[in-house]
Amino acid sequence: MLRYDVTTNDWVIFAPSRALRPHQFQRGSEKRAEVPSGTERPCPFCPGNEQMTPPEITAVREGTAPNTPGWKVRVTPNKFPALRIEEANGRTEEGRLFRAMGGCGAHEVIIETPDHNLPPALQSPEHLALVLRVLQDRYNDLTRDARFQTIVIFKNYGVEAGTSLVHPHWQLIATPVVPSTLRRKHAIATQYFDQTGQCLYCALLEAELTARQRVLVETEHFVAILPYASHTPFETWVLPKRHQSSFRWVDPSLLRPLADVLKTVLGKLRVGLGDPAFNLTVNTVSRGDEGESFFLWHLQIVPRLTTPAGFELGSGMAINTMLPEDAAGFLRDVKE
Amino acid sequence: MLRYDVTTNDWVIFAPSRALRPHQFQRGSEKRAEVPSGTERPCPFCPGNEQMTPPEITAVREGTAPNTPGWKVRVTPNKFPALRIEEANGRTEEGRLFRAMGGCGAHEVIIETPDHNLPPALQSPEHLALVLRVLQDRYNDLTRDARFQTIVIFKNYGVEAGTSLVHPHWQLIATPVVPSTLRRKHAIATQYFDQTGQCLYCALLEAELTARQRVLVETEHFVAILPYASHTPFETWVLPKRHQSSFRWVDPSLLRPLADVLKTVLGKLRVGLGDPAFNLTVNTVSRGDEGESFFLWHLQIVPRLTTPAGFELGSGMAINTMLPEDAAGFLRDVKE
Repeated sequence: MLRYDVTTNDWVIFAPSRALRPHQFQRGSEKRAEVPSGTERPCPFCPGNEQMTPPEITAVREGTAPNTPGWKVRVTPNKFPALRIEEANGRTEEGRLFRAMGGCGAHEVIIETPDHNLPPALQSPEHLALVLRVLQDRYNDLTRDARFQTIVIFKNYGVEAGTSLVHPHWQLIATPVVPSTLRRKHAIATQYFDQTGQCLYCALLEAELTARQRVLVETEHFVAILPYASHTPFETWVLPKRHQSSFRWVDPSLLRPLADVLKTVLGKLRVGLGDPAFNLTVNTVSRGDEGESFFLWHLQIVPRLTTPAGFELGSGMAINTMLPEDAAGFLRDVKE
Repeated sequence: MLRYDVTTNDWVIFAPSRALRPHQFQRGSEKRAEVPSGTERPCPFCPGNEQMTPPEITAVREGTAPNTPGWKVRVTPNKFPALRIEEANGRTEEGRLFRAMGGCGAHEVIIETPDHNLPPALQSPEHLALVLRVLQDRYNDLTRDARFQTIVIFKNYGVEAGTSLVHPHWQLIATPVVPSTLRRKHAIATQYFDQTGQCLYCALLEAELTARQRVLVETEHFVAILPYASHTPFETWVLPKRHQSSFRWVDPSLLRPLADVLKTVLGKLRVGLGDPAFNLTVNTVSRGDEGESFFLWHLQIVPRLTTPAGFELGSGMAINTMLPEDAAGFLRDVKE
């Protein structure tokens, strides 16, 4: 069976006959590294090692000096940045086909907690809400730089998700151009809005709430679903119930309810799938679209349980071995 | 620095300061499994185990009966198919947002050699040419089924590239819709053709041959380059020098020269990077475009040396830690 993803215009191949039962996606009993910090090499994100990172941009701390211990959340430039604020964003051309631009942007690391071994699923909801507030503050601060077109907030957890650092951290990259994938998603949502007068993502959320098969958590303000045309097993979205284009505008009073839902989702994935690696991204609009009606900001959690291979690379088409309604049913029964 | 990929309209972030020197991309001395077949569990692709696969579709064999040993190359349906010829391709709709279609298609496995431990880099050029001929035959046979819009030929090598089977094999998936990523690439190339009267890929090849910095191999009929805006370290393309839209039309006499170049490229990657995992795909046009001037079929080899993480998933934008001219310089010096 194939399903159509109305947010990207991709067809996704569902091949559950290739698949395992939900519980077979669990990682083995092999425990993820819980080495005490410093056992192998000093952790640059642990308290006491503040001099191992570039000087901090900001931190939540009570009374202690910058770049010393005593912080709850700490933000620094990435030591190995993909893009840098100091670079110019000028463009150069070599003939008609080779076009380049300077690596202007920002790349920050948000160290979530002083505790080397406390991933978000195990953090208190209060602390998780504090982290979300810092993420939003950094997002809002960087929107002031008119060179930055898009700000991508993301978290990599586990080696399979592309990080080798155990100490819990988020990252943020501000880019000098809108990535074309996002341009396309926004264009698709804009077209839907023009046709129907509705936000595509709000309509999808409503349809999922009506179908009721793929809803994982519903609270007063937020809903977690496993979308109809998920590209990977156990892909989960957290969406606000009220239309809002940008993560920038989330009312501070809603960060704690958001933290509650996020903790529930991450806890269920952790227990149900044996602490899987995952990527988590904040999907939001680009510069200039913050007032628009076509997009609904949301969190996207992609557990890294399968490896995209040659077919996916060559075609851009995903093969998903797990129906989202089966994955949702399994996760609903997990006690986190 | 960012570079613009004119074939996809993506900007790619180059962050070589994050990177290692080329030789540091090498896999450790850890040797890839060369377990004799059957040591752990019987290999379904080894001679004598023909009954472990679905009955063969075709095989290159001299005098022996189907589904018995004595073959040089053997093609079978995938035992766990993503799509199946028996499925209908009818579409269903549930409201406006949930659209599905039957999993109609084909999913074949091309077992390259009876030898469990003989990857393409080590196969004789004659044998590699024979494998390419079988791939082309299967491609051409499947184009006769008008339900199939696109045929993706690909090879996964190594666990990091998404395969757990050591025995050398290619795969082929025929899809009932054109994947939207390919539609976009073809639309971009069509627009370039409309504007300039030239094939975008032929123009790119010409520009790379002029720049000379990223050319890895050049022979009478084929060129291997590491493209200007490579999305990943050591990504390599093999392109024909003469314009030709589809892999379907490659003259049989050119399969041996193609095999020679492919063997050289794979050999250099194997020796230079310590037998890396890779995906290999045949890029070609979709149904109905075989006579078109806008596209040039080519092979794309993507070594799996880095893990795309949250930023790439969230934005669609690649971060490449190795400039292709540096990678090409390194590989040119490798004796395969």
